[in-house]
Amino acid sequence: MLISLLFRLCLAALFLARGVCAATEANPITAPASVEQWGLFEASLQGPTDGNPFLQVRFTAVFTNGARTVEVDGFHDGDGVYRVRFMPDTQGEWRFETRSNRWPLAGKRGSFVATAPSKGNHGPVGVRNTYHFGYADGTPFRQVGTTSYTWTHRPEEIQEQTLKTLAASPFNKLRMCVLPQAHGIELMPPKLWPFEGTPQQWDYTRFNPAFFQHLEKRVGQLRDLGIECDLILFHPYDNREDWGFETMDPETDDRYLRYVVARLAACRNIWWSMANEYDFLPTKTEADWDRFFQIVRQSDPYNHLRSIHNGDRLYNHNQPWVTHVSIQNGAALNDAGRAELYRDVYQKPIVYDEAKYEGDSLHRWGNLSAPEMVHRFWAGTVAGTYVGHSEFFGPPEGVVWLGQGGVLKGESPDRLGFLRRIMEEGPAAGIEPIDQWKDPYAWRSRPVGDGLAEPHIGGQAGEYYLVYFGRSAPKSWAIELYKSELSDGLRFQAEVIDTWAMTVTPVVGTFTLKRRDDHHFTDANGRAIALPGKPHVAIRLRRVP
Amino acid sequence: MLISLLFRLCLAALFLARGVCAATEANPITAPASVEQWGLFEASLQGPTDGNPFLQVRFTAVFTNGARTVEVDGFHDGDGVYRVRFMPDTQGEWRFETRSNRWPLAGKRGSFVATAPSKGNHGPVGVRNTYHFGYADGTPFRQVGTTSYTWTHRPEEIQEQTLKTLAASPFNKLRMCVLPQAHGIELMPPKLWPFEGTPQQWDYTRFNPAFFQHLEKRVGQLRDLGIECDLILFHPYDNREDWGFETMDPETDDRYLRYVVARLAACRNIWWSMANEYDFLPTKTEADWDRFFQIVRQSDPYNHLRSIHNGDRLYNHNQPWVTHVSIQNGAALNDAGRAELYRDVYQKPIVYDEAKYEGDSLHRWGNLSAPEMVHRFWAGTVAGTYVGHSEFFGPPEGVVWLGQGGVLKGESPDRLGFLRRIMEEGPAAGIEPIDQWKDPYAWRSRPVGDGLAEPHIGGQAGEYYLVYFGRSAPKSWAIELYKSELSDGLRFQAEVIDTWAMTVTPVVGTFTLKRRDDHHFTDANGRAIALPGKPHVAIRLRRVP
Repeated sequence: MLISLLFRLCLAALFLARGVCAATEANPITAPASVEQWGLFEASLQGPTDGNPFLQVRFTAVFTNGARTVEVDGFHDGDGVYRVRFMPDTQGEWRFETRSNRWPLAGKRGSFVATAPSKGNHGPVGVRNTYHFGYADGTPFRQVGTTSYTWTHRPEEIQEQTLKTLAASPFNKLRMCVLPQAHGIELMPPKLWPFEGTPQQWDYTRFNPAFFQHLEKRVGQLRDLGIECDLILFHPYDNREDWGFETMDPETDDRYLRYVVARLAACRNIWWSMANEYDFLPTKTEADWDRFFQIVRQSDPYNHLRSIHNGDRLYNHNQPWVTHVSIQNGAALNDAGRAELYRDVYQKPIVYDEAKYEGDSLHRWGNLSAPEMVHRFWAGTVAGTYVGHSEFFGPPEGVVWLGQGGVLKGESPDRLGFLRRIMEEGPAAGIEPIDQWKDPYAWRSRPVGDGLAEPHIGGQAGEYYLVYFGRSAPKSWAIELYKSELSDGLRFQAEVIDTWAMTVTPVVGTFTLKRRDDHHFTDANGRAIALPGKPHVAIRLRRVP
Repeated sequence: MLISLLFRLCLAALFLARGVCAATEANPITAPASVEQWGLFEASLQGPTDGNPFLQVRFTAVFTNGARTVEVDGFHDGDGVYRVRFMPDTQGEWRFETRSNRWPLAGKRGSFVATAPSKGNHGPVGVRNTYHFGYADGTPFRQVGTTSYTWTHRPEEIQEQTLKTLAASPFNKLRMCVLPQAHGIELMPPKLWPFEGTPQQWDYTRFNPAFFQHLEKRVGQLRDLGIECDLILFHPYDNREDWGFETMDPETDDRYLRYVVARLAACRNIWWSMANEYDFLPTKTEADWDRFFQIVRQSDPYNHLRSIHNGDRLYNHNQPWVTHVSIQNGAALNDAGRAELYRDVYQKPIVYDEAKYEGDSLHRWGNLSAPEMVHRFWAGTVAGTYVGHSEFFGPPEGVVWLGQGGVLKGESPDRLGFLRRIMEEGPAAGIEPIDQWKDPYAWRSRPVGDGLAEPHIGGQAGEYYLVYFGRSAPKSWAIELYKSELSDGLRFQAEVIDTWAMTVTPVVGTFTLKRRDDHHFTDANGRAIALPGKPHVAIRLRRVP
């Protein structure tokens, strides 16, 4: 009994002294003694190399914090190295124990301390207030996204350049693919492949750890830049190079998904996008996509955001495993009244990840002017939705941001940075369309004419209004706010925003509201707000306490 | 053996001679010897009057035609009269046999012949080509709907006037409620109630057959006018009179639904609308509505169209039991580019049953001008969707078409009749939006200005185009058609349509197409079509064979 107690004390001392969670046996498990909350904890150890470790070895770890227990998939990282990663969502001591069908990997125990998060670590992003996003620590996440599908597959210098570009950009979310795409590969052939073998000669049962180690490095660098990584798991862009990633059998698809999730789920900035243009992959059925969602949901203990992005046909985003709606639609951001319609359908956050791109492409999906790209962001914002940017400038096989990364050439990003600042100064709960389905273009049965000067309005009723005039160019606006949450005597201050020139001009004085009729309030003194008579102007109204 | 054979022959002769399906026992079952296909066959007989027949007697009949067997619910029609109704969908001999938990109603057999349908009988309406409707005989059904919620509860002369108005109107579908509504009842109290008892003192276990007999009479009269009856099963309009129809318990709700379906499902012009503004009924949960759909689906052997109509919150119309989408939205028909968005979400027919109403109401839901009402129909039509009309003119408690029927006072119905003729002259497969999500307002990144002269286009690619200019007033249009199904040399004839003046003006000559660029075809000779420079104009282009 005494000996047993002494032995335990010695063990405890050993743990503390080493500062790692060590096994009591010959084959030690290596892991740090602490990791910050929402940081990436990793434990590793040696294991079997015989047979096919990717197929034949099951390896997980059970993490415990008080009453909570989470079982997490580990993975084989090549050369008999097995790893398990974990993102603790709670500060304090976590214990863990490994499980495996092979003795060298089974029953290893350890513990670590999850410490306070460092500056800039707000945890993973989730859904907030039905239509919006927030970090786990409560900080709102105002999505201003961009897309660069396969920058991680390009020459090293382009990858580094891409990171520099992102660091200087306004974007806080990047859509990117796990798998390479054919576009641009003539000049820039991929160096790393996800499986052992060569194109069309893959051994689909053996992953290439170096491929995934590289991907993880890039995902981590995005995290350090404060950028969420919306990771696209499948895409239809093998099309000119029949690599064989579009025709894998279901077992391979599923194993690939589980491997990616086991490796990357502990990265706090991961979002899962089942596919880009999923319906352009005729080798998959709707049931395949449903199954992929299930696999990801079951394998990811952190419930990272899950979506799927369409080509021409919308997935049924009403299904409960879809956390938010990722949409391609080239016309839905024409105005806020149009953009808001999907909100009501899905009652989830709407992200227009593909609103067409700024660029000079001959294709209609890549020839938006910068003002139109910026307009679409504003229309989406006022509608209570979120928008994604990308650009396509240059020769068809050149380095374009959309496909390869590199540098940004367009004029929209600066303006999107300006919009992001406006969003960050806005209500923490997010911007909601004011007066749903009654936008003034539609409910007034008058001809358009100068009626187009009537704005779309988003905000938080009674507190904050963003009044956006879109493509019309009015010279003034007489305040007209829907009655919700308003009452006589409330005071607001106004600023005129030029969304292109990126200026915010305060309007002198304050406006005092007075009920005008059954629906609207206006300024009690009949004051109107002067406007510059050009398009893409907004007014910000904030309540004076 | 011989005696048995003789007996059978006698029986057979008896059947033929009587021309009815008779039972071999004391309690005969009465039924016609024939009914037309999709007509209403009804068999009736006397049964138990003891206890509560509505609760305690189960009565169905099994109808057989060749290998097909359909079991149909019967119902107690008061005073011990039991009926079972059936709509044969196949011509030829049908046999039936009754089933019941009570001997007098069990085991009654008979047969009848379903004959060819009479003129004007096209069978029930169902979904065709994903987004459209058609009658069972293959005739397209181009929905031009109106709403008069509770006309059947008003004084007899108003009901007769309503039928006369409908007979002279362009409408081929009417939304109406089973249950009375509070609006207007001060002047016009309902005479019939669905249950025995008095308001708030109902015996919910005993239906009032006279109430339903009256309803059926009106549904049959609509059928004879060629009008589909979109029957609203629940609504939130008890609100000023607490009759108790909004607070029935689940058993009562379900029994009410089964009774209505048993009585009315054999009417070929029935559509089931679970509710109007379902989300304004706080006494029901989402699960209640799901269950109601199941009850109706299981009880209705003909699979009549099923929908549910929203207030502010959309039901999940992606669920498989919803056959088409019934929408209230006051802004979605602002333009066709907006209206088409719901199609892609639901991949079912979209009916904007409530696009707000023509009228002079102080409420925003009832103050559309006639041109705006007509515009919304055209925007919806070109978007490949369908629209519903109603109107609200006059003093708040007066007879308004929306609530009570009577006469139509607005200027839109004539124009909707004109549109219906245009639709009926259009492609049998229905009108689809051309160039999905790329409507010119949106994909061209140019400022609006005269860009608003660019139309929305619906039709059948390569054959038929309806080019609608909405609120803009262009003086000409240079043909620009998306490339799908087009090739150089195809010829089209054009007509200019004034949707308000109801004129169709042929354009002299024909137009020969020529590819202009990667996306569009235009006229080979550079001809433009002259337009009158006023709003609400369309062009019809039909291919010359």
